[in-house]
Amino acid sequence: MLHLQSTSSDRWFSQVSDNLDLLLIDHAHCEKKAAGVAMNMIFAYVEDEDLCRAMTEIVNEELEHFHMVLELLHERGIPFRRLKPSNYGEQLHALIRKNEPERAVDRLLVAGLIEARSCERFGMLRERLEDKTLASFYDQLFESEARHHSAYVRLAKHYADDKTVMDRLDELAKAEAEIIAVGDENPRMHS
Amino acid sequence: MLHLQSTSSDRWFSQVSDNLDLLLIDHAHCEKKAAGVAMNMIFAYVEDEDLCRAMTEIVNEELEHFHMVLELLHERGIPFRRLKPSNYGEQLHALIRKNEPERAVDRLLVAGLIEARSCERFGMLRERLEDKTLASFYDQLFESEARHHSAYVRLAKHYADDKTVMDRLDELAKAEAEIIAVGDENPRMHS
Repeated sequence: MLHLQSTSSDRWFSQVSDNLDLLLIDHAHCEKKAAGVAMNMIFAYVEDEDLCRAMTEIVNEELEHFHMVLELLHERGIPFRRLKPSNYGEQLHALIRKNEPERAVDRLLVAGLIEARSCERFGMLRERLEDKTLASFYDQLFESEARHHSAYVRLAKHYADDKTVMDRLDELAKAEAEIIAVGDENPRMHS
Repeated sequence: MLHLQSTSSDRWFSQVSDNLDLLLIDHAHCEKKAAGVAMNMIFAYVEDEDLCRAMTEIVNEELEHFHMVLELLHERGIPFRRLKPSNYGEQLHALIRKNEPERAVDRLLVAGLIEARSCERFGMLRERLEDKTLASFYDQLFESEARHHSAYVRLAKHYADDKTVMDRLDELAKAEAEIIAVGDENPRMHS
């Protein structure tokens, strides 16, 4: 359902479970960035009303999650701050083709893959974290990431036929799996 | 309360009441842009949690209004499309100082003045439009623009003392009144 071509490694889980503060701060930034991406889609494809409606819902939900993570940081006395992002987003962004309508397909599928990877990682966190409050927090967010993934894949089909979209999703998912396998030296949601 | 230094002219009212289709299409774009501006504030001043909360509310409300205007366009059989914006936003944007914290003050006050002008113009539309459905629509949106204006002015005071902010608001409001007096040859919400 998530169209990912790998599952997250023990390496990642060890890296972030040893650095939960950094994971949570990065998570807050990820929710903010996800809201920003959805807003950018509205600006880029404003004539597509179905897309605008779906993106509006995603903007609202991601900003709500952003505040939920900030609240969690407060409760834990972790100061929120700017953080160097992992290189995951930038590497995925580089795969987006330049010309429309291929660009629309790629932007939507890349956004969809980021949601899918977050979902898969939230799944690992809810199952394996010893901190049960945090495990339950990730359980709570799991479903929306899966739903956002489906929305992005569905909307990509406005810009190419089903087979073209699913073939491209396979290609991008393969690249995404390679990027995430390399990881990032800094503990992040997508390291 | 709106800190504007002029009231909208009969010239503007005649221009847009003769071109309601264009006014409504432009209005939809304005709501989208207002959501984008609030989102950009979250990215620029993410450490300011009070600001992030207020901007989240504004993003949600502006996107809701965007969809309300799209719905109105549908009901009236007016096709939504891209439209050259008025030069109002760009001219106001040029007044924003480049260095922080002055930049934050100016970005917030400029956003606040745009909300104030929209509010004032919605007020004129609700009072003078012969189309009572549309008049009532603008009545419905009036209050939120005033509230957004107040939020932006309040938040600017995070970045300078009260007197500095209010003096700068006076300066910017004076410039805004000059820009809006010249207007724009295309019928727009801020022409």
